[in-house]
Amino acid sequence: MTSEASPSTPPALPEAPVGREGLQQLRDRLRAFAAERDWEPFHTPKNLAMALSVEASELLEHFQWLTPEASMQLDPEARAGVREELADVLLYLVRLADRLDVDLIDAAYDKMRLNALKYPVERARGSSRKYDRL
Amino acid sequence: MTSEASPSTPPALPEAPVGREGLQQLRDRLRAFAAERDWEPFHTPKNLAMALSVEASELLEHFQWLTPEASMQLDPEARAGVREELADVLLYLVRLADRLDVDLIDAAYDKMRLNALKYPVERARGSSRKYDRL
Amino acid sequence: MTSEASPSTPPALPEAPVGREGLQQLRDRLRAFAAERDWEPFHTPKNLAMALSVEASELLEHFQWLTPEASMQLDPEARAGVREELADVLLYLVRLADRLDVDLIDAAYDKMRLNALKYPVERARGSSRKYDRL
Amino acid sequence: MTSEASPSTPPALPEAPVGREGLQQLRDRLRAFAAERDWEPFHTPKNLAMALSVEASELLEHFQWLTPEASMQLDPEARAGVREELADVLLYLVRLADRLDVDLIDAAYDKMRLNALKYPVERARGSSRKYDRL
Repeated sequence: MTSEASPSTPPALPEAPVGREGLQQLRDRLRAFAAERDWEPFHTPKNLAMALSVEASELLEHFQWLTPEASMQLDPEARAGVREELADVLLYLVRLADRLDVDLIDAAYDKMRLNALKYPVERARGSSRKYDRL
Repeated sequence: MTSEASPSTPPALPEAPVGREGLQQLRDRLRAFAAERDWEPFHTPKNLAMALSVEASELLEHFQWLTPEASMQLDPEARAGVREELADVLLYLVRLADRLDVDLIDAAYDKMRLNALKYPVERARGSSRKYDRL
Repeated sequence: MTSEASPSTPPALPEAPVGREGLQQLRDRLRAFAAERDWEPFHTPKNLAMALSVEASELLEHFQWLTPEASMQLDPEARAGVREELADVLLYLVRLADRLDVDLIDAAYDKMRLNALKYPVERARGSSRKYDRL
Repeated sequence: MTSEASPSTPPALPEAPVGREGLQQLRDRLRAFAAERDWEPFHTPKNLAMALSVEASELLEHFQWLTPEASMQLDPEARAGVREELADVLLYLVRLADRLDVDLIDAAYDKMRLNALKYPVERARGSSRKYDRL
């Protein structure tokens, strides 16, 4: 935080990300956010994995009593809540990956390649079985 | 899957993403992956939120008996397992956001702005308290 | 609920369970609680498993930023919150087991017998490794 | 473990609990199980809350792609898997409550009384809304 900032000034963030800022920019902002607040001691991988799991459950809570059909047609208020929980999951995911020095996009592509081998189209089609049961 | 593909050919994926492919490219690939397998009926937001939460817990499992300190120094095998679970969380997160038509990066920036207001630097510094307890 | 009850009268529950009421009494009370509210349609095993997982995460949230040592010395307010979440987990666990017609105590003893075989004392002593890594 | 036990002898457990052994007996057995293996250092409340949440998610995984209707009619193999996960949740729940010196049954009854106030029959009937939205 710059010295000019008054106590009530939140850290400057663009009103809307210019162009399509990606995960690396998000990672850098989260690093700065934690550093400004001296939060690194709390941000061990163990603790961040807990926080990530907690946020994923807060997301889940929105859906727990809905039918699958209703979950596809959220009312505006529910949708806004869900959107915020999706954001929380992404923020902790990016922060945890940063602390472990993992490139999320690379990891995701590696996993997609593995999934393509585990779930060949002709055997997986229309089935929700796990790969070891196909 | 194109008609040229033999049954054992996995869907083509680049060995490494050229440049920095972002979340939108990942979203499109996941769409195609699900469509090829006729998995859309399983991919309701309710079910995807469950799958996301399950993956976040598989990530958590790696850390459950570790001290916070040990969680910062994973051995190569544990780190590889953790990297794969991070990828799984991202894949389901991107897929769920797609089904709900949420832009994850926009949502993340909106949430960061909110967090900056909830956790002002001068009150949040060095504290792990929730915003309503600062 | 009996017809004598006024709108503001909660269902009668003993101030403290006489003797040591066990899981079966709890199961019966939860059945009645759900039946009075016509909640059975919501209480599918799928939904109850979600609710159970959500409650387990609300419990987890209390511990996410604590050191392991601090987690052993909760202040009274945190302890009261944790106690309530422990109760929520038990309530959904008992309700889910009831819907699946599973006797929890029998299942627990069966699992303890299995654990005794998977974790023999002489190999498991002082180790947090999973049974397939001992 | 008694000194007579050979290395391959699992700790003796009755084939079936005589009468209806309750949560206190289970607690005592889990204490002994952990003590024999020198597992107390791992069994901090923080770690046990993580393990409980992980088990609740393993339970959840069984249901993630099922329709609500299918979740009520598990095939024998799925039901056996679910039963084992229900047991795991109970075992960690009892162990965690023990480490925090919480009586689970008392806590459950206290919570049921609270729920009766939060969800009065005449307003909660047929609704899955949270108490603050009734």
